[in-house]
Amino acid sequence: MLQSFIFMAAGAAGKAVESAEAVEKSLTSHLFEIFILILATQFVGWLFQRFKQPAVIGELLAGAIVGPALLGWVAEGSMLEFISELGAIFLLFMVGLETRLDDILKVGKEAFIVAVVGAIVPFIGGYYFGLYVGFSQVSALFLGAALVATSVGITARVMQELDVLSRPYSRIILGAAVIDDIEGLIVLAIVSGIATTGSFETGSIIRLVLISFAFVGAAMAMVPFVKRVPLDKLPFQTPLGVSIAFGLAMATLASLIGLAPIVGAFMAGMVMAEMREEYELEEPIHAIESFLAPIFFAYMGVQLNLAALASREVLFAGGVVSLIAIVGKLFAVFGSLTQGIKNAIVVGIGMVPRGEVGLIVASIGLSAGAIDEKEFAIVIFMVVITTIVAPLSLRPVIAWADPGVLSPKE
Amino acid sequence: MLQSFIFMAAGAAGKAVESAEAVEKSLTSHLFEIFILILATQFVGWLFQRFKQPAVIGELLAGAIVGPALLGWVAEGSMLEFISELGAIFLLFMVGLETRLDDILKVGKEAFIVAVVGAIVPFIGGYYFGLYVGFSQVSALFLGAALVATSVGITARVMQELDVLSRPYSRIILGAAVIDDIEGLIVLAIVSGIATTGSFETGSIIRLVLISFAFVGAAMAMVPFVKRVPLDKLPFQTPLGVSIAFGLAMATLASLIGLAPIVGAFMAGMVMAEMREEYELEEPIHAIESFLAPIFFAYMGVQLNLAALASREVLFAGGVVSLIAIVGKLFAVFGSLTQGIKNAIVVGIGMVPRGEVGLIVASIGLSAGAIDEKEFAIVIFMVVITTIVAPLSLRPVIAWADPGVLSPKE
Repeated sequence: MLQSFIFMAAGAAGKAVESAEAVEKSLTSHLFEIFILILATQFVGWLFQRFKQPAVIGELLAGAIVGPALLGWVAEGSMLEFISELGAIFLLFMVGLETRLDDILKVGKEAFIVAVVGAIVPFIGGYYFGLYVGFSQVSALFLGAALVATSVGITARVMQELDVLSRPYSRIILGAAVIDDIEGLIVLAIVSGIATTGSFETGSIIRLVLISFAFVGAAMAMVPFVKRVPLDKLPFQTPLGVSIAFGLAMATLASLIGLAPIVGAFMAGMVMAEMREEYELEEPIHAIESFLAPIFFAYMGVQLNLAALASREVLFAGGVVSLIAIVGKLFAVFGSLTQGIKNAIVVGIGMVPRGEVGLIVASIGLSAGAIDEKEFAIVIFMVVITTIVAPLSLRPVIAWADPGVLSPKE
Repeated sequence: MLQSFIFMAAGAAGKAVESAEAVEKSLTSHLFEIFILILATQFVGWLFQRFKQPAVIGELLAGAIVGPALLGWVAEGSMLEFISELGAIFLLFMVGLETRLDDILKVGKEAFIVAVVGAIVPFIGGYYFGLYVGFSQVSALFLGAALVATSVGITARVMQELDVLSRPYSRIILGAAVIDDIEGLIVLAIVSGIATTGSFETGSIIRLVLISFAFVGAAMAMVPFVKRVPLDKLPFQTPLGVSIAFGLAMATLASLIGLAPIVGAFMAGMVMAEMREEYELEEPIHAIESFLAPIFFAYMGVQLNLAALASREVLFAGGVVSLIAIVGKLFAVFGSLTQGIKNAIVVGIGMVPRGEVGLIVASIGLSAGAIDEKEFAIVIFMVVITTIVAPLSLRPVIAWADPGVLSPKE
């Protein structure tokens, strides 16, 4: 409404430029939306920081406030979706830059167990709960599938905010999130196959597994060699430019395979981590990320459809499913007990958010007719709860599990 | 073709994920386009730098190569257009950050005369040439109008590349470009009025003039006060975040008035210039700009439709119009003779590019039925020539007019 008022005021400025305005209008309204998202995330994020809460929750809330659910100044649309995706890509590229492969491999066994246990338990829990409350078998499979993959963006952002990315539990979370995403892809392929053809092709699932692991393996294999690549001697303008191109290439490839683009961006960042100091990549990438990543979180809030959640049935089933989602991932704790129980709990909580990955699974189920609007709403509810609960609890849990790591002024 | 090949290869990876791919496909193809644009600008820009030519011309060419005119890997579309617009906004925001209002005001008189002379002469030249070759009166008016406003982006980028933004001629160009854009808006309003209703409303033109000057004046009036604003004490997360929000707000406002968004971004940058050192705004803004601005120039190349220019008539008329466009702006030299004839010539050449502003005027004429496809192609030809000629000649002319200012290693 504010926006249309401004447009009216501007329209009054000169009828003669009306046609010029028509050309520029969609561009202007997108500029306006980005402006509003930045301003709102800056303000609500600040409020949350003042009360020692993660800014990222404030950014989510900021999006919900200016989005269709409340003020309606910012609408859903492919333009914002793409820019928010770029934000997630730069966030995980940045997190990758701060992560060395060696450090991940040191906790590789833990990460693997965390990923496997943390996928199986919620899947089974979701599936049987679905059957119990009367879902069809296929719907129950989709519900389970939506609970599998962690959406690591929000946890990564909180760990970045708290400056704990180099701690062992953070490494386990990041490593497990990569494996998790592959599991999510496989489960989705199986479940979609069952929904559309009643069965799944073992051959294509195996191909999928091989391609995913080949992608991750190829990225890992690059690591020992990149140190010897003289970025500033390549036929490109700047080391920063090549690095960004590499990050986008890996995100695109991941996306083509069916993995989350952010997994590709994270792998790319980890490859570049080997030379980040030599070419001063961190500061400029961080600057780009600090512009785009809040748009990603705010856009999550923009997409929030509160009306869809406002039925008692959805609230009840959604509450139970959220509990399954959270408790299921906490079983992952057993994978990282080598780090002590406290750190293992941090890992479990870090794996809780499902975010956009769960939503993608559910929307594929919806468009395939495998789940209905109500079942979709239950998944949305679970996504909202897990996305909010994890960052809210991470700070106090880390303060308890890893005393002294949080800087006093935080 | 490369892209569809990759999609096919990925498609073979697993039929079961086809529906997931459909959801993600447009996102993936945009990621791919951004990746290709960055990689291509990095490489062709490097080539141009090696041969001591402006990287920005290489970036334009890179876009033309990967665009529909040649390889067809990147298509025109609103998504890329918006991201390229963001690139132009950050470029001019950055240029504004390096410009103090005081320095512009010192050369205010010169900038004003440059802007006025450099608008009137090309307008009259274009109008009479149009009539001479048999255009209707309205078409001739549009041709003249398309020659009025300088597109300062490309000149600003070259001045930034050469590190001469603080020289008096650069300040005159920047100041004149702001006034130029207001003139362009006014001329467009008058010409559109004549095209659609046969006359124009003096009242609405006056309102337009007042609003434009009020906008620029308000921005200038902020300058003495911003120094006292404690950016880090405001209820926002970071000084950088607020600054970006301010830049986007001013770009949006400018766009709503009918001015180019980049004029708003430039004014915002100039306001923030007063505190850029205190809050270390330059480096992060420069990082964002170095990611996005090449996309702006590459997208100019993507939009290049060579086929439309391939008629002898268009080439001849386009050549003459380009000459009028160049010589017309060189008359602006008289406005800055106070700086010596050599510097004045730098100013004249810096004002030559017409870029997207000329295109907007022409496309409004086209959609209003005031000019036809052939006349539109003539304007495109002029835009291409002026956009390439200026940066190619700026470097040698600056080396001649301002010896010693270009660093030896450049």
